[in-house]
Amino acid sequence: MIIQLEKNISEEQKSNIVNKINEAGYKSNFVSTQYCDYIIGVGNKDFDIRAIGVLPGVKDIHIVLEASKLVSKKWKTQDTVIDLGDDVKIGGGNFQIMAGPCSIESEKQIEITVAHLLKNNIKIMRGGVYKPRSSPYAFRGLGLKGLKIFYKYCKAAGIKIITEVMMPEQIDGMYEYVDIFQVGARNSQNFNLLDALGKQDKPVMLKRGISGTLDELLASAEYIFSNGNEDILLCERGIRTYEKSYRNTFDINSIPVLKDKSHLPVIIDSSHGVGIRKFVEPVALAGVIAGGDAVITEVHETPQKAFSDGAQTLSHDEAEIYYKNVRKTFEFRKTLYRY
Amino acid sequence: MIIQLEKNISEEQKSNIVNKINEAGYKSNFVSTQYCDYIIGVGNKDFDIRAIGVLPGVKDIHIVLEASKLVSKKWKTQDTVIDLGDDVKIGGGNFQIMAGPCSIESEKQIEITVAHLLKNNIKIMRGGVYKPRSSPYAFRGLGLKGLKIFYKYCKAAGIKIITEVMMPEQIDGMYEYVDIFQVGARNSQNFNLLDALGKQDKPVMLKRGISGTLDELLASAEYIFSNGNEDILLCERGIRTYEKSYRNTFDINSIPVLKDKSHLPVIIDSSHGVGIRKFVEPVALAGVIAGGDAVITEVHETPQKAFSDGAQTLSHDEAEIYYKNVRKTFEFRKTLYRY
Amino acid sequence: MIIQLEKNISEEQKSNIVNKINEAGYKSNFVSTQYCDYIIGVGNKDFDIRAIGVLPGVKDIHIVLEASKLVSKKWKTQDTVIDLGDDVKIGGGNFQIMAGPCSIESEKQIEITVAHLLKNNIKIMRGGVYKPRSSPYAFRGLGLKGLKIFYKYCKAAGIKIITEVMMPEQIDGMYEYVDIFQVGARNSQNFNLLDALGKQDKPVMLKRGISGTLDELLASAEYIFSNGNEDILLCERGIRTYEKSYRNTFDINSIPVLKDKSHLPVIIDSSHGVGIRKFVEPVALAGVIAGGDAVITEVHETPQKAFSDGAQTLSHDEAEIYYKNVRKTFEFRKTLYRY
Amino acid sequence: MIIQLEKNISEEQKSNIVNKINEAGYKSNFVSTQYCDYIIGVGNKDFDIRAIGVLPGVKDIHIVLEASKLVSKKWKTQDTVIDLGDDVKIGGGNFQIMAGPCSIESEKQIEITVAHLLKNNIKIMRGGVYKPRSSPYAFRGLGLKGLKIFYKYCKAAGIKIITEVMMPEQIDGMYEYVDIFQVGARNSQNFNLLDALGKQDKPVMLKRGISGTLDELLASAEYIFSNGNEDILLCERGIRTYEKSYRNTFDINSIPVLKDKSHLPVIIDSSHGVGIRKFVEPVALAGVIAGGDAVITEVHETPQKAFSDGAQTLSHDEAEIYYKNVRKTFEFRKTLYRY
Repeated sequence: MIIQLEKNISEEQKSNIVNKINEAGYKSNFVSTQYCDYIIGVGNKDFDIRAIGVLPGVKDIHIVLEASKLVSKKWKTQDTVIDLGDDVKIGGGNFQIMAGPCSIESEKQIEITVAHLLKNNIKIMRGGVYKPRSSPYAFRGLGLKGLKIFYKYCKAAGIKIITEVMMPEQIDGMYEYVDIFQVGARNSQNFNLLDALGKQDKPVMLKRGISGTLDELLASAEYIFSNGNEDILLCERGIRTYEKSYRNTFDINSIPVLKDKSHLPVIIDSSHGVGIRKFVEPVALAGVIAGGDAVITEVHETPQKAFSDGAQTLSHDEAEIYYKNVRKTFEFRKTLYRY
Repeated sequence: MIIQLEKNISEEQKSNIVNKINEAGYKSNFVSTQYCDYIIGVGNKDFDIRAIGVLPGVKDIHIVLEASKLVSKKWKTQDTVIDLGDDVKIGGGNFQIMAGPCSIESEKQIEITVAHLLKNNIKIMRGGVYKPRSSPYAFRGLGLKGLKIFYKYCKAAGIKIITEVMMPEQIDGMYEYVDIFQVGARNSQNFNLLDALGKQDKPVMLKRGISGTLDELLASAEYIFSNGNEDILLCERGIRTYEKSYRNTFDINSIPVLKDKSHLPVIIDSSHGVGIRKFVEPVALAGVIAGGDAVITEVHETPQKAFSDGAQTLSHDEAEIYYKNVRKTFEFRKTLYRY
Repeated sequence: MIIQLEKNISEEQKSNIVNKINEAGYKSNFVSTQYCDYIIGVGNKDFDIRAIGVLPGVKDIHIVLEASKLVSKKWKTQDTVIDLGDDVKIGGGNFQIMAGPCSIESEKQIEITVAHLLKNNIKIMRGGVYKPRSSPYAFRGLGLKGLKIFYKYCKAAGIKIITEVMMPEQIDGMYEYVDIFQVGARNSQNFNLLDALGKQDKPVMLKRGISGTLDELLASAEYIFSNGNEDILLCERGIRTYEKSYRNTFDINSIPVLKDKSHLPVIIDSSHGVGIRKFVEPVALAGVIAGGDAVITEVHETPQKAFSDGAQTLSHDEAEIYYKNVRKTFEFRKTLYRY
Repeated sequence: MIIQLEKNISEEQKSNIVNKINEAGYKSNFVSTQYCDYIIGVGNKDFDIRAIGVLPGVKDIHIVLEASKLVSKKWKTQDTVIDLGDDVKIGGGNFQIMAGPCSIESEKQIEITVAHLLKNNIKIMRGGVYKPRSSPYAFRGLGLKGLKIFYKYCKAAGIKIITEVMMPEQIDGMYEYVDIFQVGARNSQNFNLLDALGKQDKPVMLKRGISGTLDELLASAEYIFSNGNEDILLCERGIRTYEKSYRNTFDINSIPVLKDKSHLPVIIDSSHGVGIRKFVEPVALAGVIAGGDAVITEVHETPQKAFSDGAQTLSHDEAEIYYKNVRKTFEFRKTLYRY
């Protein structure tokens, strides 16, 4: 059960609501986000919600039987729109392309990439400064120092930044320079990190776990929301299966199913989803036509020299055609017949 | 190594070729299909193929290192076109919709479905008369008797028939009434069935195994081809993964990857690929934009009463919009920019 | 619902029972095996079985809600014992080792293997004469001719034969020379083959599908039983997962779970279950201690020269120690404390 | 390449070694643990290691081609023994049982559990105070306060503590009260946590990821070792597969394979590995006979009232028989014949 509270609700009114739902055999969780205050009732007793609906201080009340409540479309039927400012929005009919290298490698690279993005009218740059790597002996990113240079160029160009955060201690240092915090697949159930990001007022893009279920992805998003942050993006990046012809198996089913279950935007990462350069485009277009709200794609000035993920990275030339096809497909999607 | 032979090659010339490749340390397999004769050399020694290329009776020779040779795009770079007659073709830029019930249930049903297909200009009807069912107590299809009625209506309407064959003994009885033999996912590695279908001169649609790899699918197609039948269609119908939000996980990656590896047409079965009615369309459109050559889709006049697979079956009303969107997406695909 | 019938039941009494259960809203299936006649009621209405239990001709009646009824332990709580004659039994406390090459390769090989088995007191020899192979260009077995030689040596030595059957047409030819028909993993849901084997009076060992569920394995066994053959063995041979350190992932959980769900014997194939020679023994011992009724293991006089599966095959020297440890572990299992 | 250094090596000697391996085209990583100093050379050039072996300050040198070097058995052929003090050891022939509730729930519970463990001569108690839970609304553990009470009782009874740590910030607070830090399956690739635990001088038990490969598990262990902590235990706890008859699929293959690849002890968690109470014992015994060095098992005074994981938890009565069988199987393992 989700109870949306009036802005000016008094403490006494709150206690009264909590008492009523406790009496009904529900546990209550108080949630305060950048947009609204909520009381979440967790339980499964049969219950007439009208008795709560009429209480002073209650704006609206909804029954949500799903385990993940706040991220469900059952109570919030309108799509969430992530607004990054300067008219850069994702979700609710707003489509974006995010592109850039796997890892931020040098100032020179940032400069070249920003120029490439500007030329193609791309508003969001991706690039890792903290890199989760299987081997402790691999390149682990330029860190905060790299992020500051990243920011300098993007700020000047009016481009937004999405980059991965790996641990709560990094958040404060990164905060000023980041527009979207990315949670990687390996941290998809790092609950302390989710808690901490839930206390931020900047958007969080949450990747599906390496073999995460959709229900787990939504439960992880619920962590962020219930800690106070409503601005969440869900990212499909392929799952681990027995098939070894590609790095991961992009789960196209997840796109329309997540859009159906949740009001949150769904992002397509076909770079990781297939992991082979020449298939990045067809898989991305598939994700767009199936309902995705944005793509996030690895591009590099010289993919064969990339510090990481070169095999799945588009060159700038390839990317220019790719961007056009992605946008064209998004426009085409609007022309499909509806039931 | 694939050696294409001249039509009028003599037995002596053949022996000469075989001797030469055996001397080079290769095993030879003779393959004769409805279109051409071949000698397949299996081995991995280093070898100058020009010594064979100049022999009398040799039309062309190609090195193909892949385990599955005849189905590979490495030697036959042009797409295979399956021609069902009456200008109904699949592959090489020819797109088709195949639709119909999971199981053929009654004469009345066939009549209604044929009318629906005619109205929507669909040229191929699907419908099972031999049904593989997990439980021995479930409905197992109307058999050959059902197929004959199926044929009577389709013949009259100019509609082609695709239907599943489960064992070699059924082939002769079915032959006259079938335009495409379908091999189901559970029989994807039933090698005796593949051998027998390789000896037919009608097309075979081969479904990927329940957890079959792409290499296994191509190897199964190689069985059919090497037994003498070049007219093969590959069908992606979703794979078994840990995710339980849907019946199967449609492997969108497989579409462009199969098109890249093989010259055979690739068919999209999103009915089984996701298994939930309202997601059949977005997943199918994804498959079309990613390069598929046809869709095969379960439709039923009253899905909730279907003998099998009702939950993933479109009603005729839903299907009418679906067909339009599928065709529109295929047309749109041609307008994409190419590198 | 399973109704066991008296041996001397009259046709009238049968009709009477069928009528009663049809009236109660159940479909009836008549099953006649080498040991007993049954009526299987399929339905899910609430029902007082005593009304049937008292009818003339009824020996016993059991409610079995599981989809797979005849193979369930819910009605037949005693373990099935497979009796191959000459005091060679499997199940119900009788343990056997089955060993031999993957493929029967030559008369000489059979001779050597039989001597090796006799020396080690092994009573059942495995060896394929019909080989399912992914590639059509690979060795496909010596066929019936090979089986006859196989039989000649085993007969003389008093050793039983288990070998794979791939299609219904092979059954008649093989029947005389086979003690256990093996159904391979790729044919685990080849329902026509299961039907045909259900009409035999010789035991059938059914391998779990490459990514088959336990419920599917039991449903396939139900096919055989409901066609008239009660003598079925279930075989765990590893499943396909994402892990690539070994050929398959032996599913140890399946051993106690199958023993708990079904009265049928459970066989351990750790050769395929792990696919690497040096791990065949620890995985087999794990299967034995977890409750398996037999092991089936690939051994070869010179594994590095085996036509197939050499990497997972034990040499005869290795096998001698292996057999001792397998038997020792089976004896040890009897000494464990029980709740 | 792993170079073990002499205790009294000078800085100059170190630089000299580093220079030599850099010249040879290898990157060098300096590792200092509680037991030894190492230089790890990462590269793949052909190289005569004797040129390094003779340098002053070098104790020993080994070529290790595996990606995970320090945890490999290729250079350290003797099993690592984890010594918890008071003669409680794991690995190298020392076997332990770890048991206790999933979550520490109350002081009373600790008291009862400790008495149960003392009675059964169990030396290590498990119990979570920080609980990773899919839903933000579920019980998340008693935290540090709970750990202190846990410690009070165990200290008095001479019992060691293993408990999960979820984030680097928790380490300092927990340090005094913990004998083994546990890393959960969801944090198996939380590299910052691994880095931080690598800087501790207490043992770390690392669980395999929910669908982690063995190579990933070893790479995560390499993180801990290369940060300075050699005392690592690897834990198999079942993997995620398509099979839904149990919570996870215990990967029995991993036990002998990990023992073969690495010198680290391997721990068996059959509670999570199968997730159903009555199968916890047979799966654990399978793990023991296949080579495991310890079991970790969930037990509870009243499993049906457990805050979490009740369905896979043994009662104290069940556990008493279980412990005996586990120990008996370990003793039996020593009597097996060896090649």
